[in-house]
Amino acid sequence: MKLKKKKKAYKVRNVSPGTMSYRGKKDSVVTKVDIINYNADTYHRIDSKNVEDAFDFKEKDTVTWINVNGLNDIVNIEKLGKNYNLHPLTMEDIVNTQHRPKLDEFENYLFIVFKMLYFKDGVDMVYEHISMVVGEGFVLTFQEADGDVFDDLRERITNGKGRIRGLGSDYLMYAILDAVVDHYLTIVEAFGDKVEDLEDAVFNAEPNNDISSEIQEHKREIIKIRRSIVPLREVINRLEKTETSIIDTKTHNFIRDLYDHIIQVNENIELYREMIWGLMDMYMTIISNKMNEVMKVLTIIATIFIPLTFIAGIYGMNFDHMPELHSRNGYFILLGVMLVLFILMLIYFRRKKWL
Amino acid sequence: MKLKKKKKAYKVRNVSPGTMSYRGKKDSVVTKVDIINYNADTYHRIDSKNVEDAFDFKEKDTVTWINVNGLNDIVNIEKLGKNYNLHPLTMEDIVNTQHRPKLDEFENYLFIVFKMLYFKDGVDMVYEHISMVVGEGFVLTFQEADGDVFDDLRERITNGKGRIRGLGSDYLMYAILDAVVDHYLTIVEAFGDKVEDLEDAVFNAEPNNDISSEIQEHKREIIKIRRSIVPLREVINRLEKTETSIIDTKTHNFIRDLYDHIIQVNENIELYREMIWGLMDMYMTIISNKMNEVMKVLTIIATIFIPLTFIAGIYGMNFDHMPELHSRNGYFILLGVMLVLFILMLIYFRRKKWL
Amino acid sequence: MKLKKKKKAYKVRNVSPGTMSYRGKKDSVVTKVDIINYNADTYHRIDSKNVEDAFDFKEKDTVTWINVNGLNDIVNIEKLGKNYNLHPLTMEDIVNTQHRPKLDEFENYLFIVFKMLYFKDGVDMVYEHISMVVGEGFVLTFQEADGDVFDDLRERITNGKGRIRGLGSDYLMYAILDAVVDHYLTIVEAFGDKVEDLEDAVFNAEPNNDISSEIQEHKREIIKIRRSIVPLREVINRLEKTETSIIDTKTHNFIRDLYDHIIQVNENIELYREMIWGLMDMYMTIISNKMNEVMKVLTIIATIFIPLTFIAGIYGMNFDHMPELHSRNGYFILLGVMLVLFILMLIYFRRKKWL
Amino acid sequence: MKLKKKKKAYKVRNVSPGTMSYRGKKDSVVTKVDIINYNADTYHRIDSKNVEDAFDFKEKDTVTWINVNGLNDIVNIEKLGKNYNLHPLTMEDIVNTQHRPKLDEFENYLFIVFKMLYFKDGVDMVYEHISMVVGEGFVLTFQEADGDVFDDLRERITNGKGRIRGLGSDYLMYAILDAVVDHYLTIVEAFGDKVEDLEDAVFNAEPNNDISSEIQEHKREIIKIRRSIVPLREVINRLEKTETSIIDTKTHNFIRDLYDHIIQVNENIELYREMIWGLMDMYMTIISNKMNEVMKVLTIIATIFIPLTFIAGIYGMNFDHMPELHSRNGYFILLGVMLVLFILMLIYFRRKKWL
Amino acid sequence: MKLKKKKKAYKVRNVSPGTMSYRGKKDSVVTKVDIINYNADTYHRIDSKNVEDAFDFKEKDTVTWINVNGLNDIVNIEKLGKNYNLHPLTMEDIVNTQHRPKLDEFENYLFIVFKMLYFKDGVDMVYEHISMVVGEGFVLTFQEADGDVFDDLRERITNGKGRIRGLGSDYLMYAILDAVVDHYLTIVEAFGDKVEDLEDAVFNAEPNNDISSEIQEHKREIIKIRRSIVPLREVINRLEKTETSIIDTKTHNFIRDLYDHIIQVNENIELYREMIWGLMDMYMTIISNKMNEVMKVLTIIATIFIPLTFIAGIYGMNFDHMPELHSRNGYFILLGVMLVLFILMLIYFRRKKWL
Repeated sequence: MKLKKKKKAYKVRNVSPGTMSYRGKKDSVVTKVDIINYNADTYHRIDSKNVEDAFDFKEKDTVTWINVNGLNDIVNIEKLGKNYNLHPLTMEDIVNTQHRPKLDEFENYLFIVFKMLYFKDGVDMVYEHISMVVGEGFVLTFQEADGDVFDDLRERITNGKGRIRGLGSDYLMYAILDAVVDHYLTIVEAFGDKVEDLEDAVFNAEPNNDISSEIQEHKREIIKIRRSIVPLREVINRLEKTETSIIDTKTHNFIRDLYDHIIQVNENIELYREMIWGLMDMYMTIISNKMNEVMKVLTIIATIFIPLTFIAGIYGMNFDHMPELHSRNGYFILLGVMLVLFILMLIYFRRKKWL
Repeated sequence: MKLKKKKKAYKVRNVSPGTMSYRGKKDSVVTKVDIINYNADTYHRIDSKNVEDAFDFKEKDTVTWINVNGLNDIVNIEKLGKNYNLHPLTMEDIVNTQHRPKLDEFENYLFIVFKMLYFKDGVDMVYEHISMVVGEGFVLTFQEADGDVFDDLRERITNGKGRIRGLGSDYLMYAILDAVVDHYLTIVEAFGDKVEDLEDAVFNAEPNNDISSEIQEHKREIIKIRRSIVPLREVINRLEKTETSIIDTKTHNFIRDLYDHIIQVNENIELYREMIWGLMDMYMTIISNKMNEVMKVLTIIATIFIPLTFIAGIYGMNFDHMPELHSRNGYFILLGVMLVLFILMLIYFRRKKWL
Repeated sequence: MKLKKKKKAYKVRNVSPGTMSYRGKKDSVVTKVDIINYNADTYHRIDSKNVEDAFDFKEKDTVTWINVNGLNDIVNIEKLGKNYNLHPLTMEDIVNTQHRPKLDEFENYLFIVFKMLYFKDGVDMVYEHISMVVGEGFVLTFQEADGDVFDDLRERITNGKGRIRGLGSDYLMYAILDAVVDHYLTIVEAFGDKVEDLEDAVFNAEPNNDISSEIQEHKREIIKIRRSIVPLREVINRLEKTETSIIDTKTHNFIRDLYDHIIQVNENIELYREMIWGLMDMYMTIISNKMNEVMKVLTIIATIFIPLTFIAGIYGMNFDHMPELHSRNGYFILLGVMLVLFILMLIYFRRKKWL
Repeated sequence: MKLKKKKKAYKVRNVSPGTMSYRGKKDSVVTKVDIINYNADTYHRIDSKNVEDAFDFKEKDTVTWINVNGLNDIVNIEKLGKNYNLHPLTMEDIVNTQHRPKLDEFENYLFIVFKMLYFKDGVDMVYEHISMVVGEGFVLTFQEADGDVFDDLRERITNGKGRIRGLGSDYLMYAILDAVVDHYLTIVEAFGDKVEDLEDAVFNAEPNNDISSEIQEHKREIIKIRRSIVPLREVINRLEKTETSIIDTKTHNFIRDLYDHIIQVNENIELYREMIWGLMDMYMTIISNKMNEVMKVLTIIATIFIPLTFIAGIYGMNFDHMPELHSRNGYFILLGVMLVLFILMLIYFRRKKWL
Repeated sequence: MKLKKKKKAYKVRNVSPGTMSYRGKKDSVVTKVDIINYNADTYHRIDSKNVEDAFDFKEKDTVTWINVNGLNDIVNIEKLGKNYNLHPLTMEDIVNTQHRPKLDEFENYLFIVFKMLYFKDGVDMVYEHISMVVGEGFVLTFQEADGDVFDDLRERITNGKGRIRGLGSDYLMYAILDAVVDHYLTIVEAFGDKVEDLEDAVFNAEPNNDISSEIQEHKREIIKIRRSIVPLREVINRLEKTETSIIDTKTHNFIRDLYDHIIQVNENIELYREMIWGLMDMYMTIISNKMNEVMKVLTIIATIFIPLTFIAGIYGMNFDHMPELHSRNGYFILLGVMLVLFILMLIYFRRKKWL
């Protein structure tokens, strides 16, 4: 079969570097801005559609967390960028939802790109691109769509639970990443459960084409998960080692702990990946074994009856002079001979361990 | 076959970092506290349910080893943590039994997480999570359940055998890890014996499905052992290189020796892992060979008798005019021809080396 | 089959190092020189066949970009090399179109070799060798043939769009590499689309030889793409770290961004490579499954009818004394027995899950 | 088949670290002590059973080489250890014959563990654990059994051949390791010859089960050799870089040369390992080819004769009205038809390239 | 089959380190000495059998290149070594033709061991061991046999072409290595052509045993080439970084260029290695496909005719009472039924896509 070669013309993004152009599901979401401003004593929260509502909080002694949902409203994002003095390349990367996880250090802020994976309503897996700008006194997060993994975190800030209200923007950054990584762990655990189900299916059920495509599907899923998650390990590692003044030394202990968690996530991913690959081998072995069994049945039947049929054929010939045919007990003797042959062959197969 | 997709909702641990929440078999064990306090001259041992019994020994010139069995009594563990001034993240990790082996250095203590593997009553393998806090003059160990590998060590302390009574908490830490690694060696040796049995089974017995699932089972077991043991290598390596004042320079020789042992354990794990993987290939080869043999028997039988049967079929036809049928010796001549054909085919197979 | 061993004599380029000898499709292109000279205020562009037209611009306060199309006019290139004081080894490498991507640092310039991949007219993929010399105030680029990926860049310079007109030769170097890497991304995306088509073909269509050769063809294509692209990663990495005065510190941010892009390209290449390899395995599995099915049909038919045919053969024999033949309902009883056998065997196959 | 799980209880060496306990074939050898003391002018050799005979030579201006054969006489070894001031961990490792090759540096001596491989009487391969203590003016070597690879070296010392008599204990250490590595080379060469024999056997002989187990056996042998030899590379590398005063700078050239040799040994091991693995693949391919050929013969025979037999069966039916049966030349016409069918099928197979 | 275990006794080279013993095809070549002495102004060339003819040139202001062909005349080589003050280990390695490529730095010279690969008369590949000593004012090269890749280089020196006559012994060293690496490139290109021929053969021709052994042969050849060439990369890398006074800083640019070339050679080797391995997989796939086709033909024929033959067998039985046999059109009805069955089965196979 000859594949139809799609000769579709590929367009290239060849614009001036630093130019913002949204690369995602355009117009899918109305941009929403969620502003939380707090310190140990004060707490404000504003839900808005206008980033300018956040600009008043730009004094240094509170932490301002501005979360932007929806990346197609470039005008608003540009305003925000100008207010916080972001580099054009940062602006470009915020709206490029295909970018891989990375950490960029600029003079006055850190820029972190990562992927948020979670179960929507505890069931369907969602991949979402997210980027974060961390400076002294502010954290900006940019999401493609509504829905995220930060509800517990927002609640802790609101209620003043934990130590978060007394600490700076670096701790908020840590808390955001921690929430993301905790969800990774859940995603990977859930995947592990599916792999174990699959393993049972391979062992217990009758293997057939569907399982092999199930395995293939899981292979692709783990590859996708891996691509989204694994690069964050390097990001957190560099975060631990970076010598920026934005991150307080006390926060380093927490980042190191986060690093332990992301390593654990990665190890689990590698484990399940290995298991999935092994499943395919296992499945092939089981097929080979089945095939072997099929061949043995065929061989036993054919090997027993082909010679016997030949003998019957001999005495079905119409020669005028075949003395055996006229012997009184010829027929019964022949049946006896056939039975003996039959038994001998059974013994042979038993000795060969085919029965 | 379509797998039933479990749409179970996964819960996420999204609590404030540093919050203790026991993640294991809750309520399975009553918390017990085993306190040993010693130096070259004095020795006390207290079995208690209350960690406060240990607080009196907190003067600097003796070594206090507090071993906590059972991690669900968070109140007691918290008291202990406060007394020894442990970081909240350490507290969180002590009760998280899923954590991978690691070493954290804090200002006043080292925190080591590892897995204890041993044969209960010399037979059943037990995996147990264990964590250890080492400071000047004290070692805290936290286990999930009763039963451990330290009985010989406790005896040596009690009897004042070896050099342990004259040395500090760093040597006690080394002695604890040494006991754990020695048991790793035994576990891995035992696994090696099983692999060799399996190898014999593959070679000698009739291969069948059960062996392939045995191999698979061993694959999974070695993966599990590996996951528990291998990260400790890095921990001990970092322990050797760390520049904390807690570890005396004299103890470094012992830690280096420990490092040699854990490397030997790891090498054995890799060796057996490779052997297990090789076994699967070997098994597939043996199956292929068997299949080959089966096919040869089928081919020989079919190739010999199908043409002969055809000839017999010819002379079983009921045409009015078939001169051979009326020849006096036609039948015997035909039998002779068949015999010659039979012999020629045997010779052919012999030349093909199929017989 | 014995391959004809080509005993063709291979010639070796064993000339004095630093000697220029064009190694490409000789005489294929007439050399053309495209000179662009600009700074924030001035802009000149000259299309010429004579490199000497560019020598007037060699004052320091403008950026001169001399692009040479066609490498077989060694005389002209040598003149250019002398004017800009290039090392003989650089001269040799400019005309050696087989060279792999690399970065050489000389005292007064950087020399970068890379490959330009793009879709000609948006359809056919073109591989072109390109080398670039970057010094203070000048960039020289050398291409094998007409057609390149810099049209948008030239337009930006002409129109004074973006920040390029206000910056130096290092930013021009960055912009050139950026255009090249953006096209890599497009090439790799297009390849990814083809891999996904192929995946569908493997799953949906009837597998046959053509698909396996399609897969093989794609394997080779990705290997070729990979060879052209991957070494540039190391080049850009070294460019980021080099401490030459030619590259301004402000440009470093852009080069780092470029490095992120090339890493993303490389990751995609590895992903598609892995997918292509996996496709082959998948295809083999599907073939195995088909084969299994074929064998099962054969075995069922043969196993049912071979014994039945034997029975029919028995009663086709011509013995004088075969009592069954003369029984009134013998024929019908036998048909009944055969039917029962037939049904029993169907049940057996059903139990074996072959039906 | 269910493997009998050996529920044997594994004992753990859980003694105080630094405790000597012989782990080998106990009581197999009577301990012998071979003392050689030399410098440029003097030479003494004593064969004894008592290590104390060596203590007189402990003045600094000669080199004393004490070789202990047999490790079960712990008392004697302990005396030696005390005299030369060895660390308890060194004492423990000397008698632990399962230890992997390593280098430990102590203040006053180097401790090297390695494996000695040689052909006993030029035929049977012997694996022997050996450890060496090198200090200023003395070298102690500990072997499990009689027989070693140092006879040529002893002769060179005795006869004063080469430069050894004029140099210190570091050169003696080098000479000992050099002798060991030279024997590695021979062992590996001999293994290479066996691999080549095996390769010929796979290509020329009729493949069968025995060869696959031969290959398997060689796989295991190379794994065993590799485990014994490869870690010494790291030991020698560290020996080259160590900054101890025990090793004279002049000796460094020799150690570097030794390092080249061990690298060559390791490369050969990897080469033969790769070849052995490739052999298995080759063998599988040959089996596949054979199988293919077997299947083709079966298919040709069956495909030709099954339809012909069917035709013969038609005319063997006993219908009252079958006009062909009564035609004068029906029989001969049918034979002709069968011949034509036979020839057509041969042509078909030839076109399919099966013949 | 049991392999005959060669119990041949392996001899070990256990002589004093630094002892010269020729390890090659002894006596195969008469030693020849080719002496070239030059600087910018003077040029002498002497062909001799006596190395002492070269000793007069040992003044510092010319470059002396002494090329020794044939390594079995140890006396002459020893004289040369003494004259140029070579270390005994260098002397030993010069005559050990099995040594792997390496670089040794001594105080007054560099010692480089490598392999020379070239096509003799442009056709047959020659592997030759070669070693080079480079000091200030002299280069010594030692070859096993006549014939090398330096004729162009000698001509350049003779004619004073290029820059070589004006430069020192370090540039001569570079020129020698450059000539060797250029021949590597040719060798690897030629190998690449052979791999492509082989690829065509696998795709176009009828696969059979010979191709699989061709592939195997090429695998071994690329392994051999790789072993000879790849270690030189490390040698040249170290040459680039070494801080000896023998190598002038100007020569570093050339060595860096050489390094680029050897990397390109290595990349090509890896590429062709990968292609050869891939070919084997491809070949196995093609065999599987063929086998599949063979099985399908067998199954179709058997599945169609076995049931039909059974039906014919039924009516060939000799029961007294078989009503169908006496029906007027029974025979023709039966033929019709068989035809219908035949057509149904064809439709079934068509639906299964086996036809």
